[in-house]
Amino acid sequence: MPLSEQKEAEIDLKVESLLSQMTLEEKVAQMRIFHASLGVEHSEDSKLVLSDVVKQKLALGIAGIKNPGEFLSPEQASLHNNQLQKYIIENSRLGIPAMFITEAYNGVDATGTTRFGRPMNMAATWNPNLVKRVWDTIGREARLRGLHMCHSPEADIMRDPRFGRMSEGYSEDTFLTTQMVVAAVTGVQGDFTGLMDGTHIGAVTKHFAGYGQVEGGRNFASIQISERTLKDEILPPFKAAVQQAHTLGIMASHGDLNGIASHGNRALLTDLLRDEWGFQGYTVSDSNDIARLHYFMGVAETPDDAALMGLNAGLDIDLYAEDAYAYLPRLAKGKPDIIAQIDEAVRHVLRTKFILGLFDNPYIDVSKVPGNVRTPASLALAHEADLESIILLKNDRHTLPLKHAEKATIALIGPLLGDQTELHFRKVLGDKVAFVIEQGFELTDQNKYEPKVLPDEVNRAGLERAVDAASQGDVVLLFLGGDEYTSKEAYFARGLGDRASIQPVGLQNELVRRVKALGKPVIVVLKHRRTLAITEFAEHADAILDTWDLSEQGDLAVAKMVVGQAVPSGKLPVTVPKHIGQLPFHYSQKNINFKKAYMFMGGDPLYPFGFGLSYADFEYSELVLSSSQVKAGESFEASVMVTNTGDYTAKEVVQLYIQDMIGSVIRPANELKGFEKIELKPGESRRVSFTVTPDLLAFTGKDNVTKVEPGDFRLQVGTSSASGVFAQFKVVE
Amino acid sequence: MPLSEQKEAEIDLKVESLLSQMTLEEKVAQMRIFHASLGVEHSEDSKLVLSDVVKQKLALGIAGIKNPGEFLSPEQASLHNNQLQKYIIENSRLGIPAMFITEAYNGVDATGTTRFGRPMNMAATWNPNLVKRVWDTIGREARLRGLHMCHSPEADIMRDPRFGRMSEGYSEDTFLTTQMVVAAVTGVQGDFTGLMDGTHIGAVTKHFAGYGQVEGGRNFASIQISERTLKDEILPPFKAAVQQAHTLGIMASHGDLNGIASHGNRALLTDLLRDEWGFQGYTVSDSNDIARLHYFMGVAETPDDAALMGLNAGLDIDLYAEDAYAYLPRLAKGKPDIIAQIDEAVRHVLRTKFILGLFDNPYIDVSKVPGNVRTPASLALAHEADLESIILLKNDRHTLPLKHAEKATIALIGPLLGDQTELHFRKVLGDKVAFVIEQGFELTDQNKYEPKVLPDEVNRAGLERAVDAASQGDVVLLFLGGDEYTSKEAYFARGLGDRASIQPVGLQNELVRRVKALGKPVIVVLKHRRTLAITEFAEHADAILDTWDLSEQGDLAVAKMVVGQAVPSGKLPVTVPKHIGQLPFHYSQKNINFKKAYMFMGGDPLYPFGFGLSYADFEYSELVLSSSQVKAGESFEASVMVTNTGDYTAKEVVQLYIQDMIGSVIRPANELKGFEKIELKPGESRRVSFTVTPDLLAFTGKDNVTKVEPGDFRLQVGTSSASGVFAQFKVVE
Repeated sequence: MPLSEQKEAEIDLKVESLLSQMTLEEKVAQMRIFHASLGVEHSEDSKLVLSDVVKQKLALGIAGIKNPGEFLSPEQASLHNNQLQKYIIENSRLGIPAMFITEAYNGVDATGTTRFGRPMNMAATWNPNLVKRVWDTIGREARLRGLHMCHSPEADIMRDPRFGRMSEGYSEDTFLTTQMVVAAVTGVQGDFTGLMDGTHIGAVTKHFAGYGQVEGGRNFASIQISERTLKDEILPPFKAAVQQAHTLGIMASHGDLNGIASHGNRALLTDLLRDEWGFQGYTVSDSNDIARLHYFMGVAETPDDAALMGLNAGLDIDLYAEDAYAYLPRLAKGKPDIIAQIDEAVRHVLRTKFILGLFDNPYIDVSKVPGNVRTPASLALAHEADLESIILLKNDRHTLPLKHAEKATIALIGPLLGDQTELHFRKVLGDKVAFVIEQGFELTDQNKYEPKVLPDEVNRAGLERAVDAASQGDVVLLFLGGDEYTSKEAYFARGLGDRASIQPVGLQNELVRRVKALGKPVIVVLKHRRTLAITEFAEHADAILDTWDLSEQGDLAVAKMVVGQAVPSGKLPVTVPKHIGQLPFHYSQKNINFKKAYMFMGGDPLYPFGFGLSYADFEYSELVLSSSQVKAGESFEASVMVTNTGDYTAKEVVQLYIQDMIGSVIRPANELKGFEKIELKPGESRRVSFTVTPDLLAFTGKDNVTKVEPGDFRLQVGTSSASGVFAQFKVVE
Repeated sequence: MPLSEQKEAEIDLKVESLLSQMTLEEKVAQMRIFHASLGVEHSEDSKLVLSDVVKQKLALGIAGIKNPGEFLSPEQASLHNNQLQKYIIENSRLGIPAMFITEAYNGVDATGTTRFGRPMNMAATWNPNLVKRVWDTIGREARLRGLHMCHSPEADIMRDPRFGRMSEGYSEDTFLTTQMVVAAVTGVQGDFTGLMDGTHIGAVTKHFAGYGQVEGGRNFASIQISERTLKDEILPPFKAAVQQAHTLGIMASHGDLNGIASHGNRALLTDLLRDEWGFQGYTVSDSNDIARLHYFMGVAETPDDAALMGLNAGLDIDLYAEDAYAYLPRLAKGKPDIIAQIDEAVRHVLRTKFILGLFDNPYIDVSKVPGNVRTPASLALAHEADLESIILLKNDRHTLPLKHAEKATIALIGPLLGDQTELHFRKVLGDKVAFVIEQGFELTDQNKYEPKVLPDEVNRAGLERAVDAASQGDVVLLFLGGDEYTSKEAYFARGLGDRASIQPVGLQNELVRRVKALGKPVIVVLKHRRTLAITEFAEHADAILDTWDLSEQGDLAVAKMVVGQAVPSGKLPVTVPKHIGQLPFHYSQKNINFKKAYMFMGGDPLYPFGFGLSYADFEYSELVLSSSQVKAGESFEASVMVTNTGDYTAKEVVQLYIQDMIGSVIRPANELKGFEKIELKPGESRRVSFTVTPDLLAFTGKDNVTKVEPGDFRLQVGTSSASGVFAQFKVVE
């Protein structure tokens, strides 16, 4: 429930009262965030130690501080952050509390918190309720450290596996991403609609907008998207974050949109976000990006112009830069008309601080911290999400689950073998099972900035050891994919993270071929942070468990899957291609994109979007529409009978896709428009219903108006984007 | 000189007079072209034989016929086409002559004409005058066959080597493509501005617009381009074709622009092309594309709607379809308001026929044909263009030209060895030189529709033969690249042509490694129709001659280069990447696109745009600007001293690039803005001047207005996009 008018008016009064007391310098201080590494320290006896630079800044107040107490335990962090807040309140003229901010895409980015699987894993669960519970835990753990906001989640549409940040986003698909972003924001914000209750934190949804579409998958590259694609495919998760989930913050994108830098894009940050969507929170730059309008983007003639451009576009807070909003007090002296813009930005920040409850209750109750962070329940939740996110891509001749695994010798082999793999497998299989364990070789030199793939010559002896170890097992589990150095964020000044190839690096293809030649069952456990072209794994492995990047206990979930203590129910949140040259390969491309295949490679992906096998089998039948002809603006029901015809109790993601046969513009081949995860016992049937609402059929037509166009549609319900039962319906005027 | 007002008025009168006599059916017949394969045949004694279908069509008249007499000798074709024209004039009520149409991107698409190198070769010459002479020959040879129009040239910007039609276009670069298109159109049209003189044919510049940008390089896929990119990078060659070169026709693109099918795009085909640019010729669909608005693009609800959509968009002629404009007579009965649109289309067609001189002189003077087609002079011209288009990519330790080649045993090896290779080499080197000749293996099964790469197992014996043959030479020339089956147009109904990978197929990398291991000089002669990622060739070869796809006498030019009878002067019209995953890799991307390299691959291309070595060496010095500060709207001169410091008389392409440091939108890293090919003797210097005009600096800014923005610029003159001497200049208000 949004704030009552009275409450809203009260906050407005308080904001205006504060604003009227503030000097220009104090106002601008409420438009800046610095990083704790600038000099927020603590002594050995846990007393706050601030550098002179930090003290000088805090004398004016501050919008927020990033990552204070990051490396402290939850308890220490809460004490530390209370001290820091107290210092700010007591040592600034107006005593305005600061926001303490973290990142949280797979758990609070701080010591001692629960580490969950990555966003791509969350999406692979196709279970928004579960994902919301995960983010609820993240929000609680963050607030208990004395934090208030997180620069998460990422609402970017991820269609380019060359991009090193791919797995920080949810999916290639707009609908799935939207559900996940809404789950994340509502989860971390504790279902916030009006005032925060002190148990959760605010979300800063990012990167607004189009950041997943950087050209060539290269971080900081230009973004070229048509207006129509932007509206129909890229913006919806952001719109939902604002209007459905009430995100408290929005972060701008590093990138541009067709030449116009997002940090200088008033049409985006003000006209669309505030005037059209009604966003009332604050906007924040990405690191240093306002200053970069000059020195990197080359769209502002001077650093001063960059600051003015960001302000005019509607950016409330400058993240980190010392050479952008830092100049606003001086600039305002020459251009007093910008003071109104500064006031507006400060209003957004102060309003958020009131909503966060910072003025009434700036401190965390430290006594609540022990026993409430990284609890058995939160670890169990991480494990539950792991189990639901694992995707069974291949399972020839029912290789999985292993029968009589307890009597077999299991070889755990390969470069992605973890420190905890053996422990987790023993936990599931007991101490009596015989394991042969051999990593064989590492993939990279693990250089943080410019990692290199270890040369084949270096790894060849390790390959032989791995094959030798594999030969001693009755069954071989190959842990393959990419380590964290093969897919990561590329940083501005230094550090690579994007790749031009998505082939598995090093000797992995050779390893799978060699092990296959041993004639034993080969199960590939795939660990990775970007989509890989695993054609050779797919050819040689008997079974493949795609695990993306699970929680710290990930191999426990893998072990349970392997022996059948759990049944896979994850579905691909992205299309898996055969080769990077097939880009773009997302399933929802325009229908005409699927007309011609490539020579020597065909036209199909390796695995389609939404795909994932189970140990059970599901049958779809009796697709019924409440009406096969509806008026534009009306809804109807589509329901289907799903039957578990297999031998395992298992979960299935029932997926609804719609294809618009004719439109005023070329329409996508297929679009996800609904899904539901259900559990069925062997032999059990259930009818699953979807409501097809007009907004699911609307798109931006030739006249740039978003609406439903009459005509023929095809509806598909099934187990993936590539299979199902079909029905036709018609929309009439 | 455009037509005088009087002449224009005369033609208008004639057009209106004819139009007033025409039935609806006769009008629509002037809006259709059929292919001669529908039933335009000839008997053994060269008499015209028409099918009933064709006779029925011709009774109403016809806009044009594609490829009549295609497989006849020039003399026979001229006789045949005269008979055909006579039949049309005498057997239709109004006796309106037809246009006979061909394709001509590397010569008239018909028997017995001169075959030139491909457009990509033409661009590699960087010599518009030479290219114009080539097209002048094409135009003359076509007219002598009794042809009047060609569906050429292609003004598409080619940036995706996955696209099978890549080498039908000129370049990745807008400026270079524009120069080439103007050369082609003015050449083939005989510098036409007003009335045609009967010696040349009209050009139909295509594919309007954006066809090079099909997603994934897949023919018939959707095209996503921002308005700004369209304006600044894609449209200029078309605009120049209309306004500078006076192209008589424009063909629409198979594709869409951001969802709007080009064949239904009135903003493009009418508002921009006619109203803004002043185009007065006719527009024509690509094959069947008006009907495809319904059954393929899915933007017209019915075939009738498709016809109406094409008509309303401004398409004058429907190419081939029996299910689009064929319906117009019926449709016009129900919708008489479309008759005005039909009349307008027919006016464009009739006007063109008057301009072509078809009414005054519908027949070709057959006596002029013998001795005037495929003459020694035209073959010499093809050879001259070959020589100027060969690009020397690598030449370690002056491997080329070969010294004392006449005393050496030369091994001519590899899958791209041609039937004429030995002959051409003997022609240059004389009969006494010893050759070892071994193709080794073929690349593909040469299936026209779905070619397959021959399996390595099949080719391994051939590889051994090739290596064995190479071992018998003192020097090895490896003919590598891609055959015509590895890069071709993908057809609508059947046939693949696009590739997801640009690796050389088959055992070619292994061949170059094996031959290199023999310890002899290895020269790769690269033949191909799409850019290939030749990293292995580049690593192992001592020298590389990149020849793209030369004329029928191509290897004669290669042989001359090899022995130094000619000196390479071609320059890359496209960037050569290391891997398809680096896409986009054109050099003129936005400056921010070059910020981050890829992990494990770096950021540089294998060879930059504009690159090409010589046997001579050129030094650039004394770059002088007539002014380093100019007012927006003013021009200035930039001149540079170029010196041949080598031992060969040679040609060099002096290239001018400009970078705009700051703009209201993100600016390209670098842009070609001028070039001149000069010839210098050893030791000779020449000052080369460029005029930097305002239109070279203009771009479409944040407000969507195309203009020059004040600020700092960097100017570069040099031997490629990646090297040169630099100067700064400033544009002020």
